[in-house]
Amino acid sequence: MPANPVLIEALRGLTLESAHRGAVAVVDADGALHSAWGDIDRPIFPRSAVKVLQALPLVESGATERYGLSDEELALACASHGGEARHTAAAASMLAKAGIDVTALECGTHWPYFDGAIKAMAAAGGQPNALNNNCSGKHAGFVCLGCLMAGEDDRRAFLTGYVKPDHPVMREVTAALQSSTGYDLARTAVGTDGCSIPTYAIPLRHLANAFARVATGIGLKPGHAAAAMRLRQAVARAPFMVAGTGRFDTRVMEHFGERVFCKVGAEGVYCAALPTLGLGVAVKMDDGNTARACEVVMAALLARLLPLAESETGFVQSLADVALVNWNGIEVGRLRAADVLHRR
Amino acid sequence: MPANPVLIEALRGLTLESAHRGAVAVVDADGALHSAWGDIDRPIFPRSAVKVLQALPLVESGATERYGLSDEELALACASHGGEARHTAAAASMLAKAGIDVTALECGTHWPYFDGAIKAMAAAGGQPNALNNNCSGKHAGFVCLGCLMAGEDDRRAFLTGYVKPDHPVMREVTAALQSSTGYDLARTAVGTDGCSIPTYAIPLRHLANAFARVATGIGLKPGHAAAAMRLRQAVARAPFMVAGTGRFDTRVMEHFGERVFCKVGAEGVYCAALPTLGLGVAVKMDDGNTARACEVVMAALLARLLPLAESETGFVQSLADVALVNWNGIEVGRLRAADVLHRR
Repeated sequence: MPANPVLIEALRGLTLESAHRGAVAVVDADGALHSAWGDIDRPIFPRSAVKVLQALPLVESGATERYGLSDEELALACASHGGEARHTAAAASMLAKAGIDVTALECGTHWPYFDGAIKAMAAAGGQPNALNNNCSGKHAGFVCLGCLMAGEDDRRAFLTGYVKPDHPVMREVTAALQSSTGYDLARTAVGTDGCSIPTYAIPLRHLANAFARVATGIGLKPGHAAAAMRLRQAVARAPFMVAGTGRFDTRVMEHFGERVFCKVGAEGVYCAALPTLGLGVAVKMDDGNTARACEVVMAALLARLLPLAESETGFVQSLADVALVNWNGIEVGRLRAADVLHRR
Repeated sequence: MPANPVLIEALRGLTLESAHRGAVAVVDADGALHSAWGDIDRPIFPRSAVKVLQALPLVESGATERYGLSDEELALACASHGGEARHTAAAASMLAKAGIDVTALECGTHWPYFDGAIKAMAAAGGQPNALNNNCSGKHAGFVCLGCLMAGEDDRRAFLTGYVKPDHPVMREVTAALQSSTGYDLARTAVGTDGCSIPTYAIPLRHLANAFARVATGIGLKPGHAAAAMRLRQAVARAPFMVAGTGRFDTRVMEHFGERVFCKVGAEGVYCAALPTLGLGVAVKMDDGNTARACEVVMAALLARLLPLAESETGFVQSLADVALVNWNGIEVGRLRAADVLHRR
């Protein structure tokens, strides 16, 4: 792996303690490069950052109307959520609307990601189920799509194995990923994601292009263009559902509404659609650091790209230059975007 | 920051998903370089990896005998523990033996690091105190040393502010760090650690040299040489205390006993003393990744450096080439040391 530029610096006192390298592509809907840092042509696994692309068939299929899915539920279909009560309730509701239950989910079970939800569950003597999986909303969306596709057939039988690449549901999902990114997924590396669905290696250039298409509808087939707008609006109306308490995606979209759609993925991936600019953004940190590295990169990119009102610069700066505080509440350092992200 | 070599590869399927760069120094007690990767002369903050050096004055002072500190308690003085019941009990015991209590600790409070301890505490409706801080054993050691140094003076008054660089306790601790590493700490960068004590920037070359001295006693002043041996023995006898359930340091030292003393530090630092080889090892990952990156580096170094019985190679290999398993228990990738760490 060639060394991409340092994008994030972690300082202790005034000394550089650690650094995160990565690559960024900013592309418009026609595929024209707006700006870039590092190698944007190496295929990378986008992981959960592309959930909105994977949710396009759900909306295109008509399942939204058929099952009466709400904004909160559509936002959850694009989410890597914290497993908080509102998240699990919405996932359960999606399944119920399709006439099925949690046992249909094939994402696996883990304790909630949100610290407060872990403690609440432990205090109540509870145990997690698949609804707490951060991907349960995406999977509930797959299941809703599958229920619609099953038609008069036995739904349980039809749904079994929906996470496999050759299942009709996953074929629809992969086709949406292929057509929105314009990248040949049949010829690229494929891995298995944390929730057991396939993840296809796609260059940042193509991912950013896909998000510019989500931002504008340009270059998407009509059904997907309408679906992308519907999903962006749903997330803008229910940003809590896409992540959760204190999380970067939720905070940013609570602030910016429809001006920003952003979504984190595991292993240091971030994608964003910027509708007012007609641009898409894709980030991958070399070291796979998500929470501290690529969030700060995204904040610096928003500060750089978006026209900000004076009242907004403080909010974005606070995300792009973060105080590191120790257990006694003393500021011991900073996490900040490197100069290369600010320079023009 | 120059790009150090890739030392750890995270594969998804057969494809490189993320990579961790870093530097390693392996040095003997005389300072002769045995082997190295990357830049070993840039000063780095060693953080908790040098707790054994910071505990030398505690043992040298005679506090071990005066307060009747056990192997478990001395091991805890070198620990970044999980805040499990045995850890907090030992920290409380150290304080009680010195005739003082938890309110003397200036490390700050956080929830236990060990997941099981968090859930148990939440289930019991408990809240953490400073004993749960992963550094509480080191701080209990500082407090024991301070109580001894206070003599007939008011202990509380004497101890106040012991985390500050100019406090008599911290001066002793810093002097031990200076003399064992042979690095001029008065002229290097200093930061504030998570537990509020100073952390001094020291090159890996000097850190590895200090750990070779801990391994052999060579190059340490007599009181420190005896203290180093006592601390190594204590940790070898009570490896649970230095980390905790399932943790790398505990597992490695349970396996190797006195043949390996190793200690993790925040931000991707690792140090080790290898007494049978007379060598010291110091590792710093560029990106600060501790849990997955530098542990695997250390495992690969142990496999490379130590003469292993046939029955031991499986154990070390399992730490140097780790299966990544998803929420459904499916192996989705591997975390492994790069070829450069194996090549001779």
